Amino acid sequence: MANLPDPIQNAAAAFDILPGVGPRAALRYAYFLVTQPKEVVERFSRALQGLADKIRTCDTCGQWSDRSPCSICADPARDQSILCVVATSPDIRSVEDTGVFKGRYHVLGGTLDPIEGRTPDTLTIAKLVSRLKSTPSITEVILALDADVPGDVTCLYIRKQLESFPIKVMRLARGLPTGAALEYADAHTLADALRGRREQ
Amino acid sequence: MANLPDPIQNAAAAFDILPGVGPRAALRYAYFLVTQPKEVVERFSRALQGLADKIRTCDTCGQWSDRSPCSICADPARDQSILCVVATSPDIRSVEDTGVFKGRYHVLGGTLDPIEGRTPDTLTIAKLVSRLKSTPSITEVILALDADVPGDVTCLYIRKQLESFPIKVMRLARGLPTGAALEYADAHTLADALRGRREQ
Repeated sequence: MANLPDPIQNAAAAFDILPGVGPRAALRYAYFLVTQPKEVVERFSRALQGLADKIRTCDTCGQWSDRSPCSICADPARDQSILCVVATSPDIRSVEDTGVFKGRYHVLGGTLDPIEGRTPDTLTIAKLVSRLKSTPSITEVILALDADVPGDVTCLYIRKQLESFPIKVMRLARGLPTGAALEYADAHTLADALRGRREQ
Repeated sequence: MANLPDPIQNAAAAFDILPGVGPRAALRYAYFLVTQPKEVVERFSRALQGLADKIRTCDTCGQWSDRSPCSICADPARDQSILCVVATSPDIRSVEDTGVFKGRYHVLGGTLDPIEGRTPDTLTIAKLVSRLKSTPSITEVILALDADVPGDVTCLYIRKQLESFPIKVMRLARGLPTGAALEYADAHTLADALRGRREQ
């Protein structure tokens, strides 16, 4: 990057670490910010400093938050009888956006994939078990994990761990995504949709 | 964005202003940074603060720089007889990356497009003319503008302004991009390549 001013190079190098952002896009972002009012760039800088300073994990559910317990765990209006197990913090937002779930969460920290070194002890499964032991109000656990092989393996493993609990262990339904055309559905999805068929 | 911690929401809102970055990608970037070491996020924050504090335009060529004259204008090794006119600062980097050009630059600030309100007085064309008047060492101007209609219009307009100067006014060649298959070249490009044919 010959002859680029240091501040622009530094900003481009910073953007370059983001997932899916290459050197060209990173440089474009840096140049874009140069054209913005100084306050906008300073607000951006402060927002990132805020991330570095204020984000921690919730001791109860494990999600990223600026406080512990997080706003969901601390909310007395949330249903105490039902727990949704997700792989990562951003998954909580996806579930919240549905407006359908009013219980609490547990963040696993990923899914099992022994080939990638993601063994049970790298996840918070033991913490989930002890949380269920110490919270008898929980009568249902929903495993809201990806619909792929690591997701399936993780569901099976957790179900095994919870066998001795008087708890319903549920997982997300599989089938056609809303708006899907039958013609373009892949065979696996359609097979799942057939197996999971419901009365009209 | 119900129940998202403020620091994550603020960071996502900051990323959301970048060109081509939507709310989903912005949130992904924010969550990605949360998983990074604190130093990485702080360095990112400081890099943006550096942009806000240190970037100005070079009084000579008009490019974004942390000093004026910029490192190119201040470099006595650069060829003083040839000036490359570009639309924006990032274009300088593209030309520099070729390693072919050793002269200096002039940043127009865009290209002419009256429909979009980009009239000659919104560009630094008057500044270019006075720079050429006061710098008799410049004997050649290369118009390195986009190969589209606004680029063409701008080239024609500038050539007109420079008619009375004893200066060669050149523009970039048009033709097949390196690596292009003739089969897939569009008719305009191929027509340009035929008109601009050269001896083998």
